[in-house]
Amino acid sequence: MKTISENRCFDGVQGVYSHKSKVTNCDMTFGLFLPQEAQQGKVPLLWYLSGLTCTHENAMVKAGAQLWAAEQGIALVFPDTSPRGEGVADDDDYALGQGAGFYVNATQQPWAPHFQMWDYIASDLPSVLFNSFMLDEEAQAITGHSMGGHGALTIAMAHPGRFRSVSAFAPIASPSASDWGRVQLVAYLGDDETTWQRHDSTLMMRKVGFDGPILIDQGSNDQFLANLTPETLAEAMAARRQQGSFRLQKGYDHSYFFVSSFMEDHIAFHAEALYA
Amino acid sequence: MKTISENRCFDGVQGVYSHKSKVTNCDMTFGLFLPQEAQQGKVPLLWYLSGLTCTHENAMVKAGAQLWAAEQGIALVFPDTSPRGEGVADDDDYALGQGAGFYVNATQQPWAPHFQMWDYIASDLPSVLFNSFMLDEEAQAITGHSMGGHGALTIAMAHPGRFRSVSAFAPIASPSASDWGRVQLVAYLGDDETTWQRHDSTLMMRKVGFDGPILIDQGSNDQFLANLTPETLAEAMAARRQQGSFRLQKGYDHSYFFVSSFMEDHIAFHAEALYA
Repeated sequence: MKTISENRCFDGVQGVYSHKSKVTNCDMTFGLFLPQEAQQGKVPLLWYLSGLTCTHENAMVKAGAQLWAAEQGIALVFPDTSPRGEGVADDDDYALGQGAGFYVNATQQPWAPHFQMWDYIASDLPSVLFNSFMLDEEAQAITGHSMGGHGALTIAMAHPGRFRSVSAFAPIASPSASDWGRVQLVAYLGDDETTWQRHDSTLMMRKVGFDGPILIDQGSNDQFLANLTPETLAEAMAARRQQGSFRLQKGYDHSYFFVSSFMEDHIAFHAEALYA
Repeated sequence: MKTISENRCFDGVQGVYSHKSKVTNCDMTFGLFLPQEAQQGKVPLLWYLSGLTCTHENAMVKAGAQLWAAEQGIALVFPDTSPRGEGVADDDDYALGQGAGFYVNATQQPWAPHFQMWDYIASDLPSVLFNSFMLDEEAQAITGHSMGGHGALTIAMAHPGRFRSVSAFAPIASPSASDWGRVQLVAYLGDDETTWQRHDSTLMMRKVGFDGPILIDQGSNDQFLANLTPETLAEAMAARRQQGSFRLQKGYDHSYFFVSSFMEDHIAFHAEALYA
């Protein structure tokens, strides 16, 4: 593992590190905020999965999360959204290829050799984090924005017992039924739609649900509502009697101005579960 | 004036606007955060002047200021740091030309036709703002980072009665005695150093001081300490018995992680003066 940078931030440290991933077969970069408490012992970890076009950096500098994480003594990890670099496939569409890994394990060419973001988030990066930093593996929670909200919800539901709580900002709620999803799922997984199911949080909500509390925030003026289909997940959560809140926030759009406006609520929500 | 974007943010609106400036002779872009209270009446205004290489956007997305401004009911303006565009002179050095206006009125070629950032901040942009938005001209304060801290301090001291308070994050404290300053002051103003004096906050502190409270934060691990010379301003403030605080923050560097870590304190400091 290589240290790219470390900056003091809210009495903790905002670091950026890179490592060679065995599952994506390339160097991966991630941001990690460690609160002051990590100098004394292991701290809880909140995962933040980012959306289309983002790297590890966007949320790290724009979401305003460190303030609240520092207040709660929680670490934050900001993974990248795809493999990158020479020899890694890409596409002209911003919503496919580099910056758009969709948190799946690709089985199709040319993506399969590197686009293994499900395993990267669910097993490879965790082993790096818990081996190298003062993080409590027993106290994890997960959140994300847009494509990252989709990743957070699907990964959380597929790993019962791992995450105490899950939240999302404007998640892609049903990629198998959306323009943000069908194109990518065909490209990465092929056209057998049964392989898509675990990557659709609405379908997963109907099938298994989540074994803890969920918080979803969605802006009512989001410019991508047609691709996000919040109604499908809201219906599925209510139909399942899933513990959680689904909130429509009047006037907010899809930007980080929306995300940062509700970050305090999300981190307080996760802190309650992490310190329960 | 043209609206570039408006995003809902902490119950207010983060806007980006452009206008044709008569003093810089080009289109200028600025960010303006209006808190919810601006829907009912005029609100106080805090200026945020940015540093080298920044546009109007950096602090707007990275400083985490809107949260605290919303809490205090204060508007924030984020001006650009220089004129820009075709026909505007530039230089290969990141610290000269576009992105590096240094908040002076250039008298030398090729800069003079557009690089009039002192007048832009002190008279042109104010007339746009107070004519177009619900802002209280009688309740202004000013802050800035690095080159912008230099701008905030020098403009505040040169306009007694205009700003209720001034603060700075890691300001270039004595540009006339620093590598971040001498090159630019020669280029923009020529080699008659008497014209430089009002653009050196240490010299201005010795000569006139500020008619209100000052708050300065400086990271002790700032990678640019040799160019910032905080000791000159700290000495001048103490020698003058200037009302204010000069704080060294252990371990912090020059980044926005530093700025955002202390933004709450700065906005609370200005709010106290603005609502006095």
